[in-house]
Amino acid sequence: MTYLDHAATTPMLPDAIAAMSDAMSTVGNASSLHSSGRRARRVVEEAREVVAEALDARPSEVIFTGGGTESDNLAVKGTFWARRDADPARRRILVSAVEHHAVLDAVHWLADHEGAELTWLEVDEHGRVCPDTVRAAFEQGHDDIALATVMWANNEVGTVNPVPELAAVCAEYDVPLHTDAVQAVGGVDVGFAASGAQALTLTGHKIGGPYGVGALLLDRTTTAVPLLHGGGQEREVRSGTLDVPGIHAFATAVRVSVESHRESTDRMIKLRDELIAAVRAEVPDAVLNGLPGDSPDRLPGIAHFTFPGCAGDSLLMLLDAKGIECSTGSACTAGVAEPSHVLTAMGADETAARGSLRFSLGHTSTRDDVDALARELRGAVDRARQAGLAGMRKQKQEA
Amino acid sequence: MTYLDHAATTPMLPDAIAAMSDAMSTVGNASSLHSSGRRARRVVEEAREVVAEALDARPSEVIFTGGGTESDNLAVKGTFWARRDADPARRRILVSAVEHHAVLDAVHWLADHEGAELTWLEVDEHGRVCPDTVRAAFEQGHDDIALATVMWANNEVGTVNPVPELAAVCAEYDVPLHTDAVQAVGGVDVGFAASGAQALTLTGHKIGGPYGVGALLLDRTTTAVPLLHGGGQEREVRSGTLDVPGIHAFATAVRVSVESHRESTDRMIKLRDELIAAVRAEVPDAVLNGLPGDSPDRLPGIAHFTFPGCAGDSLLMLLDAKGIECSTGSACTAGVAEPSHVLTAMGADETAARGSLRFSLGHTSTRDDVDALARELRGAVDRARQAGLAGMRKQKQEA
Repeated sequence: MTYLDHAATTPMLPDAIAAMSDAMSTVGNASSLHSSGRRARRVVEEAREVVAEALDARPSEVIFTGGGTESDNLAVKGTFWARRDADPARRRILVSAVEHHAVLDAVHWLADHEGAELTWLEVDEHGRVCPDTVRAAFEQGHDDIALATVMWANNEVGTVNPVPELAAVCAEYDVPLHTDAVQAVGGVDVGFAASGAQALTLTGHKIGGPYGVGALLLDRTTTAVPLLHGGGQEREVRSGTLDVPGIHAFATAVRVSVESHRESTDRMIKLRDELIAAVRAEVPDAVLNGLPGDSPDRLPGIAHFTFPGCAGDSLLMLLDAKGIECSTGSACTAGVAEPSHVLTAMGADETAARGSLRFSLGHTSTRDDVDALARELRGAVDRARQAGLAGMRKQKQEA
Repeated sequence: MTYLDHAATTPMLPDAIAAMSDAMSTVGNASSLHSSGRRARRVVEEAREVVAEALDARPSEVIFTGGGTESDNLAVKGTFWARRDADPARRRILVSAVEHHAVLDAVHWLADHEGAELTWLEVDEHGRVCPDTVRAAFEQGHDDIALATVMWANNEVGTVNPVPELAAVCAEYDVPLHTDAVQAVGGVDVGFAASGAQALTLTGHKIGGPYGVGALLLDRTTTAVPLLHGGGQEREVRSGTLDVPGIHAFATAVRVSVESHRESTDRMIKLRDELIAAVRAEVPDAVLNGLPGDSPDRLPGIAHFTFPGCAGDSLLMLLDAKGIECSTGSACTAGVAEPSHVLTAMGADETAARGSLRFSLGHTSTRDDVDALARELRGAVDRARQAGLAGMRKQKQEA
């Protein structure tokens, strides 16, 4: 099996599996006062320090959550509520058009349900939010803005945003910036303090850690109303029994993935470039989406192509039949019949948006994976095109 | 070490550890369309069937969440919003006075933030909500009631509520009932269909499963507004990448704990009664809280005592020093300087409420644990009483 879908989820790192297995055989609720409880609490606090150190944050800024979707929802809804509670005029959210659905659907809900107003930040043809776009939004009026949310790196096309520049603009207007760094951590350098963002989302299963655990890095001066009320864990921002083994394994994955990113970026970029070259050699009219292949503002692991004349999901299934696993875009919207909002925001027409595939590399990827794709891609594209033509003929006959 | 705090968290069952370990070494996002994704999806759907079968629910009623706190928040806030959206007059919540903080703090937030009105359901001296109490609340007016929430079994004193009778009253008024069954599952028979409740919370780490995963059983005709928006997983009620290994291990724990409860209830009750007898033999004036020791409406694993003249947290630390781990009440409020809201709702005065300890048994408990407690308890109580007397003398001198 050739797994080219690491951006959807990547296998757990051996160190993370070992951490999880070790901690699973212990007992102790980290909120309990007895020895087992205090031991569990130490594991959690050590994990907090590890995550903070790897991401240039303070331990007190690390809030453990149940994953990326929860962190995004907490950041967006929690900050919105806190800002609106402090000043009822602050109801507007600046949000990039290419966010993950965990942000998009959260802001839509706030608009439908809680009186939020949304200002969409457009992206350029590479999927990038430019600081001037953010500045222009503020210059239209800013006293009613609650927060801004722009992802660090896009999960479909791999474009990296200039987060420090975006945060600098937000800081001029004293508006907190949340950034979804789920795809960025372990792929590019992510430093919370240096970024200037007030809130940052990351999650375990994208970096070789477990599912079901992630974090929100939240500046101490930024308030967020909790989504989950209860025992008052995590600065009273996120209640719920602390997942000791999961947090231990998650912190291990953060540390290892950040360290190994520094060592292995060159290898990953080389492999990705070989993949891009192989795709272009086999299917010369395939179009690489996002920034040019040699841009530094590209995630090392993602290559996203439009294959003219193909339906992306047909191509996905044809490749799967040959043992090659990839995706049309975000796994979270797989099976949804709509074209990618990321590609349409970048200016792609609907047909092109539907005819696209994402190949994503990770820590287990090798040259063999690229070779396997090269062997099978042309045949699959040819069949997908024939199916597409047959479908069009049939539609014409029926019309 | 003598672990008598299984109600805070219990060691993972060997079968659940094995399930987790097996699934951790696989890859595949359950939302992905390729073979690995479909394989992951099958694991999740099989887990859903296992949970449903063990708890007399339909698979489509099982919504996997990040644990008990999230399930409680989703049930209470989600149902409140959905009911209020359908009929703006429905803003009142009937809530028992002895709920876990995950329910209490959620309803307080709804009152402070979303215009909810709270009607407290009082409990009797055993901590039980009587059907007549619920009926009396409805008879005061019911057109404005959004939902009722009453826990299946209390986490501090172990009193089991008559959920089917409570649900029958709610059904007369067509008001959905949520029940937090976190402590009940694996302790007493819990059947969702037979209970008549519309929503039921359970969580993994209380039944020998992993932390960070739980479920909300939600009747198909009951609507809940999501807390976590995003990829649309779990009937669009709970977005977030599915935690495949966690869900697999959780379902295993649900199945094993429900099966073994049926086999081992007698053993557990015998052990608990031995513990109660040992405590009474060593400290004759200790008062057993909750229902009488021989009541069938008592969790088999919990024995909660007031030790007159003792501060509960001193006693806890003295026992811990002797290798015996227990708690003053809920782990989620451990370290909080307030007396238990459960005991005060049952009519205890503040001093008695502060002088209480919970001993809770679980699947690894043996007679040795009871014997160890019996050996150390009297000495610890004597020392705690001396400390208490010294403290009172000091307060008097200072006054």
